[in-house]
Amino acid sequence: MKTPEEYKESLREMRPNIHKFGELITDVTTHPATKRCVEGHARIYEAAQNPDYENIVTTTSHLTGEKISRYLSLIESAEEMTANLRLKRTMFHLTGTCTGGRCVGWTSLNAMWATAHDMDKDLGTHYHERLKKWLTKAQAEDIAVAGAMTDPKGNRTLSPSQQEDPDMYLHVVEENADSIKVRGAKVMIAGVAAANEIFVLPGTGYKEADKNYAVAFTIPRDAEGLTIVEATHPSDRRELEEGFDSPPKTGITQAYLFFNDVTVPKERVFMCGEHRYSLNVVLNFIMAYRSAIGACVAGQGDLMLGAATLAARANGLTEKTFRERLTKIAINNETTFGMGIAAATLGKKHPSGVWICDPLLSNINKIYVAALPYEAKVITQDICGGIGETGCMPSSKDFYNEKYGKLVQKYLKAAAPAEERARIARLIEWLTIGAGVPGCLHGGGSPGGAKIVIWRQIDLDKFTSLARKLAGIKEQAPVAEK
Amino acid sequence: MKTPEEYKESLREMRPNIHKFGELITDVTTHPATKRCVEGHARIYEAAQNPDYENIVTTTSHLTGEKISRYLSLIESAEEMTANLRLKRTMFHLTGTCTGGRCVGWTSLNAMWATAHDMDKDLGTHYHERLKKWLTKAQAEDIAVAGAMTDPKGNRTLSPSQQEDPDMYLHVVEENADSIKVRGAKVMIAGVAAANEIFVLPGTGYKEADKNYAVAFTIPRDAEGLTIVEATHPSDRRELEEGFDSPPKTGITQAYLFFNDVTVPKERVFMCGEHRYSLNVVLNFIMAYRSAIGACVAGQGDLMLGAATLAARANGLTEKTFRERLTKIAINNETTFGMGIAAATLGKKHPSGVWICDPLLSNINKIYVAALPYEAKVITQDICGGIGETGCMPSSKDFYNEKYGKLVQKYLKAAAPAEERARIARLIEWLTIGAGVPGCLHGGGSPGGAKIVIWRQIDLDKFTSLARKLAGIKEQAPVAEK
Amino acid sequence: MKTPEEYKESLREMRPNIHKFGELITDVTTHPATKRCVEGHARIYEAAQNPDYENIVTTTSHLTGEKISRYLSLIESAEEMTANLRLKRTMFHLTGTCTGGRCVGWTSLNAMWATAHDMDKDLGTHYHERLKKWLTKAQAEDIAVAGAMTDPKGNRTLSPSQQEDPDMYLHVVEENADSIKVRGAKVMIAGVAAANEIFVLPGTGYKEADKNYAVAFTIPRDAEGLTIVEATHPSDRRELEEGFDSPPKTGITQAYLFFNDVTVPKERVFMCGEHRYSLNVVLNFIMAYRSAIGACVAGQGDLMLGAATLAARANGLTEKTFRERLTKIAINNETTFGMGIAAATLGKKHPSGVWICDPLLSNINKIYVAALPYEAKVITQDICGGIGETGCMPSSKDFYNEKYGKLVQKYLKAAAPAEERARIARLIEWLTIGAGVPGCLHGGGSPGGAKIVIWRQIDLDKFTSLARKLAGIKEQAPVAEK
Amino acid sequence: MKTPEEYKESLREMRPNIHKFGELITDVTTHPATKRCVEGHARIYEAAQNPDYENIVTTTSHLTGEKISRYLSLIESAEEMTANLRLKRTMFHLTGTCTGGRCVGWTSLNAMWATAHDMDKDLGTHYHERLKKWLTKAQAEDIAVAGAMTDPKGNRTLSPSQQEDPDMYLHVVEENADSIKVRGAKVMIAGVAAANEIFVLPGTGYKEADKNYAVAFTIPRDAEGLTIVEATHPSDRRELEEGFDSPPKTGITQAYLFFNDVTVPKERVFMCGEHRYSLNVVLNFIMAYRSAIGACVAGQGDLMLGAATLAARANGLTEKTFRERLTKIAINNETTFGMGIAAATLGKKHPSGVWICDPLLSNINKIYVAALPYEAKVITQDICGGIGETGCMPSSKDFYNEKYGKLVQKYLKAAAPAEERARIARLIEWLTIGAGVPGCLHGGGSPGGAKIVIWRQIDLDKFTSLARKLAGIKEQAPVAEK
Repeated sequence: MKTPEEYKESLREMRPNIHKFGELITDVTTHPATKRCVEGHARIYEAAQNPDYENIVTTTSHLTGEKISRYLSLIESAEEMTANLRLKRTMFHLTGTCTGGRCVGWTSLNAMWATAHDMDKDLGTHYHERLKKWLTKAQAEDIAVAGAMTDPKGNRTLSPSQQEDPDMYLHVVEENADSIKVRGAKVMIAGVAAANEIFVLPGTGYKEADKNYAVAFTIPRDAEGLTIVEATHPSDRRELEEGFDSPPKTGITQAYLFFNDVTVPKERVFMCGEHRYSLNVVLNFIMAYRSAIGACVAGQGDLMLGAATLAARANGLTEKTFRERLTKIAINNETTFGMGIAAATLGKKHPSGVWICDPLLSNINKIYVAALPYEAKVITQDICGGIGETGCMPSSKDFYNEKYGKLVQKYLKAAAPAEERARIARLIEWLTIGAGVPGCLHGGGSPGGAKIVIWRQIDLDKFTSLARKLAGIKEQAPVAEK
Repeated sequence: MKTPEEYKESLREMRPNIHKFGELITDVTTHPATKRCVEGHARIYEAAQNPDYENIVTTTSHLTGEKISRYLSLIESAEEMTANLRLKRTMFHLTGTCTGGRCVGWTSLNAMWATAHDMDKDLGTHYHERLKKWLTKAQAEDIAVAGAMTDPKGNRTLSPSQQEDPDMYLHVVEENADSIKVRGAKVMIAGVAAANEIFVLPGTGYKEADKNYAVAFTIPRDAEGLTIVEATHPSDRRELEEGFDSPPKTGITQAYLFFNDVTVPKERVFMCGEHRYSLNVVLNFIMAYRSAIGACVAGQGDLMLGAATLAARANGLTEKTFRERLTKIAINNETTFGMGIAAATLGKKHPSGVWICDPLLSNINKIYVAALPYEAKVITQDICGGIGETGCMPSSKDFYNEKYGKLVQKYLKAAAPAEERARIARLIEWLTIGAGVPGCLHGGGSPGGAKIVIWRQIDLDKFTSLARKLAGIKEQAPVAEK
Repeated sequence: MKTPEEYKESLREMRPNIHKFGELITDVTTHPATKRCVEGHARIYEAAQNPDYENIVTTTSHLTGEKISRYLSLIESAEEMTANLRLKRTMFHLTGTCTGGRCVGWTSLNAMWATAHDMDKDLGTHYHERLKKWLTKAQAEDIAVAGAMTDPKGNRTLSPSQQEDPDMYLHVVEENADSIKVRGAKVMIAGVAAANEIFVLPGTGYKEADKNYAVAFTIPRDAEGLTIVEATHPSDRRELEEGFDSPPKTGITQAYLFFNDVTVPKERVFMCGEHRYSLNVVLNFIMAYRSAIGACVAGQGDLMLGAATLAARANGLTEKTFRERLTKIAINNETTFGMGIAAATLGKKHPSGVWICDPLLSNINKIYVAALPYEAKVITQDICGGIGETGCMPSSKDFYNEKYGKLVQKYLKAAAPAEERARIARLIEWLTIGAGVPGCLHGGGSPGGAKIVIWRQIDLDKFTSLARKLAGIKEQAPVAEK
Repeated sequence: MKTPEEYKESLREMRPNIHKFGELITDVTTHPATKRCVEGHARIYEAAQNPDYENIVTTTSHLTGEKISRYLSLIESAEEMTANLRLKRTMFHLTGTCTGGRCVGWTSLNAMWATAHDMDKDLGTHYHERLKKWLTKAQAEDIAVAGAMTDPKGNRTLSPSQQEDPDMYLHVVEENADSIKVRGAKVMIAGVAAANEIFVLPGTGYKEADKNYAVAFTIPRDAEGLTIVEATHPSDRRELEEGFDSPPKTGITQAYLFFNDVTVPKERVFMCGEHRYSLNVVLNFIMAYRSAIGACVAGQGDLMLGAATLAARANGLTEKTFRERLTKIAINNETTFGMGIAAATLGKKHPSGVWICDPLLSNINKIYVAALPYEAKVITQDICGGIGETGCMPSSKDFYNEKYGKLVQKYLKAAAPAEERARIARLIEWLTIGAGVPGCLHGGGSPGGAKIVIWRQIDLDKFTSLARKLAGIKEQAPVAEK
C-alpha cells in the first residue's frame, strides 16, 4: 500500500489538466487551490499506516486476500457497510472535510459490481470480468478513485436527446472494437484533484431514445481530451493566503469535467448502451451512498460539538450552560449515523456478492442529511457568538500588524488567549459558513429526488388494509391510483 | 402454548381485584372497561397459532429448547432484538394499540437477567438461579407478564426516605427467611388487566439511605393485599357503549397498583436492598425498552398512514394530493423504527448472555418517540378534515336514529358511503385524539430523563481534542467541568 | 342589554330542535350535553355587566349610538379589530373554551356588510338596507348569533351542481316575492345550542352553474324545518356525569344543521343567486376571522402556560426548571396574537365602513393557528407528566370511593394535595386531549386553503425584478406562468 | 439634504483611520474593502431624491419642521415605527444588504432621547438639551450616524470591573469640566466605513461598582485616538476582484473600534456614570431595534423569494413546482415583518415623545429573526441546486478564459443563458452562504438574551390564577419563586 508521499508522487506524475481562476495548475500537491484537498486525502494514506486506524481504513481483498485500502474493497455484508460508516466518520474527524476523491469512486465500483453482474446474466455481456480486472489492478496500485455522476442537465424538463444541445448529458459519440469515444461533461465532482482515476456512471435512468447516454467507465484523471476546471466557493480566495484565517490544512474541491471526445478503451467500459440498467446502477449507488453519507455528516457534527464547547469555554462559560443545545447536535449526529446503520442492517445481499442497503431507510437518511446539519450550524454559531456566526473578526494580517495588532489581540482575548479564541472562531466560521461547509443538500442527490424514491417504497396497500380492518370496514374503499 | 381461549380462561380464574369507576370488575374478559385490553392481548395468542405470524410471535427457549412466546424469551443478539422490533410493529398493526401487558414484563425479565448475574457475581447472591426457575415456569405456562416500574414519587425534589410519606416509592417493610413484605404503589401500569403476573422493578437508582426501596420481584396479579384501580381516559366512557364510535375492538388500560403489605415469597424476589444495582437494572430496562418502543410508534404511524389515505379517498381525493405529507409520516415511522434497529445493531452482549442495546442511540430514540407521533397525528387530522380532527360528527346513535338518522347519513356520504366515511373518521379520531393515543411522551420515561442520559454519553473530550487539532491550537483551552 | 339569566330564558323559550345521542334536548340550559356551551356564552353576558370587562365586551352602536355587545358591532377601524382580538383572548381566559356561538355570527355580519354594499352598488339590489334593519333589531335585543358556512361538500372534486346529490351544498330550491326556500346542510357549526339566531353564508365561491348555492341569510335557531344534531367528541360522555373529571363548567358544541326546505323571509335574505359575490363574502369573512382567531389560540395558550406552571409546582418543582419550554408557549401565544394585530394594522377601510384586514397576514396567521397549539400541548403534557398526557389517573368516582378512595388520594398527592393535583392534571388533559381541544386545524378553514390564498398574494414579479437588478441581469429570464 | 455625491465627498474629507488586511484605507469610497458598503448607504441618499421613495426615506423634523432623512428622525408614534419597518424592507430591496451605518445610530438617538429625558427629570441633568442640539445639527447636515454598543466583554462570567483587564468594556478614564476621556473598544460595529459619526451607547446595565462604564456619546468617525479595523468575512477577498462572482455592488462592513483615551467634549456626552439608567437606554434600544430588524430580514427574504424563482426558471422549471416551499419563505418574511408591526402597534408613548415598542413582542421577534432566515436559505439553495448551495461553479475568470471558457459557458447554460444562470446562482450563493448573509443570530443581541427578557414579561400570576379558577381549585397552590 502507498505511503502518503508515494501517493502525492503519483499525483505529481500526472499530466496537468486542472485549472482554476483561469490558470493551469501544474502541481496539485503544492498549488494553494488544490493542496488542501490533496492533504485531506493523504491523511487516508497516513491513517492506513497508523495502527490506531489500520482496522478502520484497511481490509482484506475478497479477490486476492491481500491487505487493501477499504476504499477499494467490495462491501459484502451489513458489517462491512457498518465499517464504511465508521471509516467515513473517522476520516471526517481526521480531516474536518469531505474526502470525496475516494469515497464516491468506492461506492461507484460497488454499485457497478452488482449491475455488471445483472447485465452479464441477462444479456451475456462480459462487464463483470472487466470490472474485476480493473479492480484487482486498482487494489494492487492503491490508487485514489473519484466518482462522477452528475450531468449538466440543461433544461430540466427535457430528456437528454430532447435537449437543444445533445451534450448536456455525457454520451457515447463513437464506438469501435477496442474503444468508445465520449462527449459531454460531469459537474460538481468532488476531490478530482486528489484522484488518480475517475469512475464515471450514468446520471440517471434512460429510455431507448437516450441509450447512448447509458455509459459507465473508468479513466485516468489526466486522460487526453479531458479538461478540468475547479469550482470557486465563497471563501477559497482566502485559502490562497497564509495565516490562520483558514485554520485546517485540509479541504475539498469540486470540479467540472469536460469530455471532448475522450477515448475510453473497452476494458475500462462497464456499460455502453444498456439503458435498461442505467437506473439500476444509479439506485445501487444511491442506496449505499445515502446510507453512508450520514456518517460524514455525523463526523462534521462531532467537530461542531467540539468546537462549540471550546468556544463556550473560551468565553469563560461552562458547556453546561448550553447542555440542551449541545445535546441537540449530538442527537442529530447519531441520527444520520444511526439511520445509516439501520439501512445497512436491513439491507440484503445481491447475487453478485455486494450488500445492498435498504432502499427506504437509505433515502430517508438523505432527507436528514439535507436538513440536520443546518441545525447544528445554527447552534454552533449561537454558542460562539458573532465572531463565529460570520467570522466577525479582523484578519490574521491585522492580528499580527505591527502598528495596531496589539489592540486586536488585547480585545479578542477572553477566558482563552486571543489567538486561541480567534482560531476557534475561525474554525467555527469555516465549519458553518466557510470552506468547510459540505454540500449536504445536493451532495448524493437532492432531497426532492429522495422523497420520490421514498414515496414509491411506501406500502400503502398494506397500511390501508390494516386500517380498514381496525375500522371495521368490510367493502373496499374506492381505490384512487397512487 | 396457550390458545386465546385458554388465555382468557386463565384470567377468569383469578381473584377479582381490579376496579374502575368505583366498582369491582368481576370478569376482565367481558367487562366493557377491560375487555378491549384483554382482546388486544388475546390477539398475540392468536397470532402465535397463525402460520403467517408464528416466526414473529414465537421463538425457541434458550432454557429448554421448546417453542415459546417471544414475549417470554431472552434476547441474546442484535438479531433477536431486531425480532423484538418487528414483533412490536406487527402487533400494533394487528391490534391498533399497545400490548403493554406483555412487552414491559418481557423487557423487565431481560433487564433483571443481566443485573441478577452481576449481583450474584459481585455479592454471592443467588438471584439468577431464582429468576431462571421463574422464567422456565413462566415459559411453560405461557403466561402474560406485565411490568411495573413507575412509583408515585410525591415531591419530585425529595428522595424516597426524605418524603413526608415514606410510601411514595414502593419499599420493603419486612423481611424474613422465606418472604418479604412490600408497601407502596406502582402507577400508570399498562395492561395489568390482561396479565397473569406482574414483574416489579425499582423505579430509579437509590443510595444507601434508600436501600429498602431497591426491590425487584414478580407476583400474581391477584396477590393478596394488591388493590388495582384503572385510570380513566377522556374517551373511555364511550367504550362502555355499543356502536361504531369506538371502532377497534381492542384497547389498553393503565392501572394504579396499591401494595398494602403484600407478601412476596423469596423465590420470586430478585433484588432486596442491593441499592447499588438499582440504577443498573433500570438502565438495562431503558436501553432495551427505548430501542424497541420506536417499533410500536412506527406501527401506529403505519395505521395513520393507512387511515389518512382512506380518508382522502373517502372525500374523493387521490392520496397523491397529500404525497408530501404522507411521505413525512412514513419518514417518521421509519425513523423511530430505524433508530431502534441501529441501537440494537450497535449494542453488545452482556456476560449473562443478554444483548444490551446502545445507550446513546436507544435514548435518542426516546426523544423521537416523544416527538414524531405528534406530527403524524396533525398530518392525519389535516388530511381527514374536521370530522377526524375532533371527531366532529353525530354519534352512531344519531346515525341510526329512526327520526333523523337518514339526514345524518345523507350528509356524511362523500365519495365513500356514509358509514364507511364515518368509521374512517372515528378511527382517525381514535388514533389521534381518542383512546388509541398511546402515551408516547412519558411511556418508557420522559424525554427530559432521556436527554440527561444522552448528555452523559457524549464524548466531549474526544470532540474538543479533534477540534483543537483542526484549529491548530496546541495548548489546551481552560477546561470547564462538565 | 340582556343579563345572563334573561339570555338563558331566551334560549328556553325556543322550540326544541336540537338532538344528541338519539334524543331531543328539551332545555339546552340544563341538559348536560349543552349546558356547558350555554354556560360559556352566558359568561359573555356576565362580563358585559362587570365593570372590569365592560370596555372589552361592549361598545357603542354606530347605528344608534347605544351601548351594545361588541359581538353585534360593526368593526370600522384597526383599533376596533384590535379590540376584537382582546375580547377573544379575554373570553378564552374566562371560559377556557370557544364561544363560537357569537363570534362567527359577528364576523359573518361584518363580512356581509361589505358585500351587501358592493352588490347594491353594482347591481342595484337592496341588501344593505335589509342587513342594517336586521342588525339594528339584533343589537336592541342583544341576541346571540351563531354563524354557519361549512357545507357537507360530498365528493371534493365536484362542484355543487355536479354532485350526484344536489343537496351537498346548501341551496335555494324555491323563490317567491316574500321568501325563499332552502335545502341542504351546514355542518360542524359551533355554539348553535347557545344561539338565538344563525347567520348563514355561502361556503365558497360559485360559478354561474352553481348560482343557486350563492345564498346568505339569517334565521332563528328554531326555524321550522331546521333539524339540528350535535356532534359527539371523544370525551363528551364524561360530561354527562358529575365529579371533577371534566373540570370546567363550560364547553362548546358543534352541530349539524339540516335544512329541509326551510322558508326564509326576504327581509332576512342578503344574497340570493349573485354567485359573483359569493367568493367575495367568503374572503371578507376569512380575513377578519383568521386575524382574530389567533387571539383565541393565544388565550388557550395562556391557560396552558398557567396550568403547566401549576402542574410543575404541584410536583414540587419550580417553573424555572421549565423556563425554556414555558417561554416557547409564550412565544407561540404572542405570535398568533401579534400576527392578528399586524393583519388588523395593515388592513384598510372598505367603502361600506367595514375594516378589512390584510389578506396576506391574516391567512398566514391561519397557518400558525393550525400549527402552534400542538406545540403548546406537547410542552404542557411534558411538564405535567403522564397524569396530564393521557389523564392517566383513576376517576373522581374512584377518588372518593369508600373502600379504596383513600389509597387513590394517598398516592396522588405530591407537593400539592391530591385533589388539587388531580384537578390540575384533569384540566391539562381537558385542554390538550379532552373536550377543551378546539379545532384549530380546520376551524376557520384548513391550512391548505390558506396557503393557496397566500400564494396568490405573493408579489413574485416585484421580487424577481429586484433580484435581477442585484444580480446584474439585464434581459428578462424566460417567464414561466405562475 | 445631501446628494449621494456630496455624501461620498463628506466621507472623503475625513481623516483615514480605517484598516483592513494590515493596511490603512485612504479613501473608503473607492477602496474595494469599503466601497460596497459606501455604495449601499449612498443608495439611501439616492432614494431620498427619488420621488418613488421620498415618502419612505424622508420625513419632517419635529424640531425644525424641515424635510429630513428618516434616519435622523424621532419616532413618535406607531405609524412612524411602521414607517421605520417599511423603510428597512425597502432599503434591503434596493441594496440587498444591511445599511447599518445609519439605522443603528437612528435607533440609538431615539433610545437616548427617552433616557436623557428620564435622567434630566430624576437627576436634574441636562442631557436632553445637549442631545436636541446635536440632533438639530445632524439633521441639518444630513450626516450618516453609525451606532456602537457591543463591548469585547472578556470573560463572560465577570462584570467589567472584575475583569483582569478593565478595558474589556468601554469606560470613562478621565473627566473634566469640558470633556471626558474614554478607553476600551466597541466591536462588530456595522457600517462604520460609511458613517460620518458614531453614536456610542453602553452595552448593558451596570451596577454602582461599574458606574464608569455607563457612558453614552457621539463622536466623528475620524476622532483622534480612534483606531478602526474592519473584520474579514469568508468571501470578502473575492470582493477585491472584478468579475461577476460578487454580483451586487453593495455590501456591509463590521468594524472593531479601539478607543485609546479618546476625548469627547461634554456637549456630545449624554450619559456619564448614571449607571442606573444604563439598562434603561439599552432596553429602549432593544425594543425599537428588535421590532424593526424583522423588516430587514423580510427584505432579504423577499430577495431570496425572487432569486429562487429565477433559479427555478433558469433550470426550465416553473416556480409552481416549488409552491409549498416558496410559500414558506413568504410566510417567514411576513412573520418577522408582521411581528414588528404588532410590537409597534401595541407600544406606548414615552413622556419624552418617543414611541416605545412592546417589550414582549419585540423580543419575540428577535427569536424569529434569529431562526427563520435559515429556513429561507435552505429552501433557496434547495431550489437552485448545487450551483447555488455552495456556489459550485468555476469563477468568472474561468467563465471568460480564452482557452476553455467556452466549455464552461456551454455547460452552464440551461433554460437561461449561461451568464444569466451563473449570476443568479452567485446571487443565491451571496445571499445564503456568502457576503450577503447578515448576522441575524447575534445582530441586535443574541436570542438567548431575548428569551430572558421574554421570560420576565410573562404574567404567570395571571395565567395560573385563570387556570386555578377553571380547574375549580380554591386554595392557592404552593408558589415556587419564579
